[in-house]
Amino acid sequence: MYRTHTCGELRLSDAGKKVKLAGWVQRIRKFGKMTFVDLRDRYGITQLVFTEAMNQRLEDQPLNREYVIQAEGRVVERSNKNPHLPTGDVELVVEQFDILNEAKTPPFTIEEDTDGGDDLRMKYRYLDLRRPPLQRNLLLRYRASRAVREYLDQHGFVEVETPFLIKSTPEGARDFVVPSRMNPHQFYALPQSPQTFKQLLMVSGFDRYYQIVRCFRDEDLRADRQPEFTQVDCEMSFVEQEDVLQVFEGMMRYVFKQVAGVELPDPFPRMSWDEAMWKYGNDKPDLRFDMCLHNLKVRNQIHCPAVDKSGFGVLDQAETILALVVPNGASYTRKQLDELTEWVKRPQIGMQGLLYVRCQPEGELKSSADKYLSQEILRQIQQFCHAQPGDLILMLAGKEDRTRKAAAELRLELGERLGLRQKDVFKPLWILDFPLFEYSEEESLPGSVGRWVARHHPFTAPRPEHIPVMIENSPLIPPGTDYQDHPYAGIKANAYDMVINGQEVGGGSIRIFRRDLQEKMFAALGLSPEEARQKFGFLLGAFEYGAPPHGGIAFGFDRLCAILGGSDTIRDFIAFPKNNAGRDMMLDAPSPLEESQLRELHICLRKDQN
Amino acid sequence: MYRTHTCGELRLSDAGKKVKLAGWVQRIRKFGKMTFVDLRDRYGITQLVFTEAMNQRLEDQPLNREYVIQAEGRVVERSNKNPHLPTGDVELVVEQFDILNEAKTPPFTIEEDTDGGDDLRMKYRYLDLRRPPLQRNLLLRYRASRAVREYLDQHGFVEVETPFLIKSTPEGARDFVVPSRMNPHQFYALPQSPQTFKQLLMVSGFDRYYQIVRCFRDEDLRADRQPEFTQVDCEMSFVEQEDVLQVFEGMMRYVFKQVAGVELPDPFPRMSWDEAMWKYGNDKPDLRFDMCLHNLKVRNQIHCPAVDKSGFGVLDQAETILALVVPNGASYTRKQLDELTEWVKRPQIGMQGLLYVRCQPEGELKSSADKYLSQEILRQIQQFCHAQPGDLILMLAGKEDRTRKAAAELRLELGERLGLRQKDVFKPLWILDFPLFEYSEEESLPGSVGRWVARHHPFTAPRPEHIPVMIENSPLIPPGTDYQDHPYAGIKANAYDMVINGQEVGGGSIRIFRRDLQEKMFAALGLSPEEARQKFGFLLGAFEYGAPPHGGIAFGFDRLCAILGGSDTIRDFIAFPKNNAGRDMMLDAPSPLEESQLRELHICLRKDQN
Repeated sequence: MYRTHTCGELRLSDAGKKVKLAGWVQRIRKFGKMTFVDLRDRYGITQLVFTEAMNQRLEDQPLNREYVIQAEGRVVERSNKNPHLPTGDVELVVEQFDILNEAKTPPFTIEEDTDGGDDLRMKYRYLDLRRPPLQRNLLLRYRASRAVREYLDQHGFVEVETPFLIKSTPEGARDFVVPSRMNPHQFYALPQSPQTFKQLLMVSGFDRYYQIVRCFRDEDLRADRQPEFTQVDCEMSFVEQEDVLQVFEGMMRYVFKQVAGVELPDPFPRMSWDEAMWKYGNDKPDLRFDMCLHNLKVRNQIHCPAVDKSGFGVLDQAETILALVVPNGASYTRKQLDELTEWVKRPQIGMQGLLYVRCQPEGELKSSADKYLSQEILRQIQQFCHAQPGDLILMLAGKEDRTRKAAAELRLELGERLGLRQKDVFKPLWILDFPLFEYSEEESLPGSVGRWVARHHPFTAPRPEHIPVMIENSPLIPPGTDYQDHPYAGIKANAYDMVINGQEVGGGSIRIFRRDLQEKMFAALGLSPEEARQKFGFLLGAFEYGAPPHGGIAFGFDRLCAILGGSDTIRDFIAFPKNNAGRDMMLDAPSPLEESQLRELHICLRKDQN
Repeated sequence: MYRTHTCGELRLSDAGKKVKLAGWVQRIRKFGKMTFVDLRDRYGITQLVFTEAMNQRLEDQPLNREYVIQAEGRVVERSNKNPHLPTGDVELVVEQFDILNEAKTPPFTIEEDTDGGDDLRMKYRYLDLRRPPLQRNLLLRYRASRAVREYLDQHGFVEVETPFLIKSTPEGARDFVVPSRMNPHQFYALPQSPQTFKQLLMVSGFDRYYQIVRCFRDEDLRADRQPEFTQVDCEMSFVEQEDVLQVFEGMMRYVFKQVAGVELPDPFPRMSWDEAMWKYGNDKPDLRFDMCLHNLKVRNQIHCPAVDKSGFGVLDQAETILALVVPNGASYTRKQLDELTEWVKRPQIGMQGLLYVRCQPEGELKSSADKYLSQEILRQIQQFCHAQPGDLILMLAGKEDRTRKAAAELRLELGERLGLRQKDVFKPLWILDFPLFEYSEEESLPGSVGRWVARHHPFTAPRPEHIPVMIENSPLIPPGTDYQDHPYAGIKANAYDMVINGQEVGGGSIRIFRRDLQEKMFAALGLSPEEARQKFGFLLGAFEYGAPPHGGIAFGFDRLCAILGGSDTIRDFIAFPKNNAGRDMMLDAPSPLEESQLRELHICLRKDQN
């Protein structure tokens, strides 16, 4: 044993003991004939004292930052105690030491805050991981996975490992594939999720399954997306939606309590998809602050009469007008308002402009469209939006989808600027009653204009009360009719998303488990029985041998850890992440193969490209 | 909720309760006007009774094997109790039932023993997984993984997830690779193990790491090898071999106690590699029975003088002669002995023949070489082998390596035939002091005949006392000298294997962590510093920034579960295994890709082959 204690362990009660420590040299200070060294490991920092007698040895064997050393000596009480360190009451008077390993000077400082840039830190990830913030993140991740397992174990869930080398399916996101050497010209795929396997396990009778498992998606990477990510994957048999919601909000309460000491509400609030879209403009509202949307006009339907024939073309011609009220925002300067206007005009947001109405504390209403809008109209808008004197009303106008999205983004931006999105406040909720279908105008069926596509996946069940709607109606959308009037447009899925602080942390559904409904679903999606069997063969086969009612959920574990750690960056909670080009900067992967490897795999590089 | 209880839950104390059960129809029996149905789920079987009143409904909605049903009714005491079922004291008198899902007749019986062949069961794995033995296996696996985590958690280990999309390395077994779409003509590799990552985590200061993790090796499959397998991967810093052995034999004791209720010895026996090879002929001896090898002559060195110039050419010309003593084996018939002789002559074993000496109970010695060997010589051999009257001596002769391997196999075969390899007896041990190097005559270095290769991997440390031997001697093997006389031949690795019942369940080593020794190691393996950097770049880089002393171990988790379950077949302990051609019979994977997918991945199929 190289040590008797860790560097975070010694206390005043240890004074007088002879101990051995081992760790990394964090800092070296000389005071006269004494040398003080901060020795670091993942448990903490202990001060070593080299007295005059030892200093000669230090001169023969000079120490430097990040050297790995072992030191033996006696624990003594410090005269100048350091109240910021748990070990700050004592120091180790070194009687014997060994340099276990030398170290080059690291390319950036290994401290709470570092001077290293992103790329450098990614390349030397093993050094960045020495820094306390990243150590805390990975330990938090570990505690979170333990808490998840504890809860699921206690609730009768069984972890079952599912395969990584599976079959490529043409649906969904792109697969990563693996050429088979033993089966020439054939490929495995890496799983995008264990979805089909967990459903098969239900068919096998493992009625409560979970797995903390790596998944893979070959998508174009956006900031904070990783090609490989970890999922907490769960499925239950003989359950209805209510059972699933209760089990898994219970899990989240347990995890937050164990890992962050936070009590989440019991029960979680629930909101329909329709309500979320109406009030927050998206299906993952951040409930840390209110600031709901006000729906003045939606798809040409007037809700606030003031915007009907206001005489102001921007309003009168808009299909949809939404407003937000910034509490005490009337004091925003012109510069701040111009900035917000520029913000909504950015291509990512895509609005034409931003109308504002300042509700002056003394009652007057000042609008950016004063020229066009009377005080009376502004007053009616103020009343519709429940804006108080001193508040600011911001209005967006355009097509519903884009305007709603923009309003949702603007709401978050305002919440951010107002400091309403606190990192240590956690507001979970369930979003329920998603539409089962989305309309696609890109593909059509005979006798139909466009067709329905599954919003989630084709095994998601409709809400029980909507099953007859689906059974009794044809999926075809006859020419000359509006898809929004089709009975299928109103069918809701028996699906649920868990949202925390504006992030979707998990989602799932009750699955279709009866053949007749599954056939109807495939027909609705325009698949013939043959096509369905070709695409979902083994799962359909399994469904013919006695599938129980079942449903499940999957949580994005990287994201969950980031939320628990109060961070927006999942990369900081992954030990060895990839950059936005999908590269591992430390390994320098991916990388070219040798020709002999390609030959063994029966593949070649495609020359006629790029 | 579809059920109030599981099918394994009801007891006599529940009699009178109104309950709901859901599960699969296992069996249907009619007695007069009553129908009895065994309802099954993974918790057990409960008998349902359909009285005369319900029988009409059964006629309208007939049940069949593997139908999924829900039944509601009252629990009553059975008149004819079934003592073989935990629920056998009660039955459910059905008042209401629903067929939740129908089922086609399964292709094989879903019972303890099945009539399904291997291929059929692999194809319908989800049905095979309904059978009790496979359910028990997967539950055992789950309990084993929980026990592993519990122990490691309690001992301060932190689980850290490492990446799956990594860099291909030319060393070791073949990698599975993944073409990158975003980085044309470049490939990721799937990890054969997280070896380098766990060492990097030690450099990062995570001083006790573990992970239960999938690994991938594209090897030609032998029986009971899977292209993807699960490993319990562990690493520790600031430790010496003794620390690692104690922690991990403790883990194994904990796991066996928790999962199988078995007390493993404390401490585990230890055996040097030399001793294991000498006494058992291989480095993973099955200690459930003795029957050690007797080394009569090894590499022409006589240990039993009787075989020196015996006058029998087979013995006199053999480089090595080994013997086994079968207790009470003198009664083996001629047919049995012929059978054993054929057995050792099979190509896998490759011996020329088998000599036997029957030690008759009355003292006489009867040998298959009576013509050549006198009673006196046979007597000396008997004494050397400590054979008793009634025993049988079996002798093998040939080159040492092959003879030792054959003797080891013969020992296991005899143990099997004698019933000495009991499934519920567990004999663990540590094998220590492996040779650090193996000799390869295929490659040479300038001035050397052949060269040394790493037996484990180039980061395995030599035993501390052998480090000077390595530092002080040149690795070159001068022409005209025997590599066995070279000082490197005697250098032992600071490595260890854990063996249970003749199976290697885990192995690891203390790693080299100092640059000077690592450089010497690379030189010993004939690598220039540049080549070393090219092959092991980022790990070497990490070693320059303060690597602590560290070491670790990895356990084959599939194998461990099979041993715990008393089985030889790891496939029975994997939910969705692949067959010996690396195919998933259920998914029908691997499979061809569409041309558009290949194009996106910048690869094509190699036409000019096969």
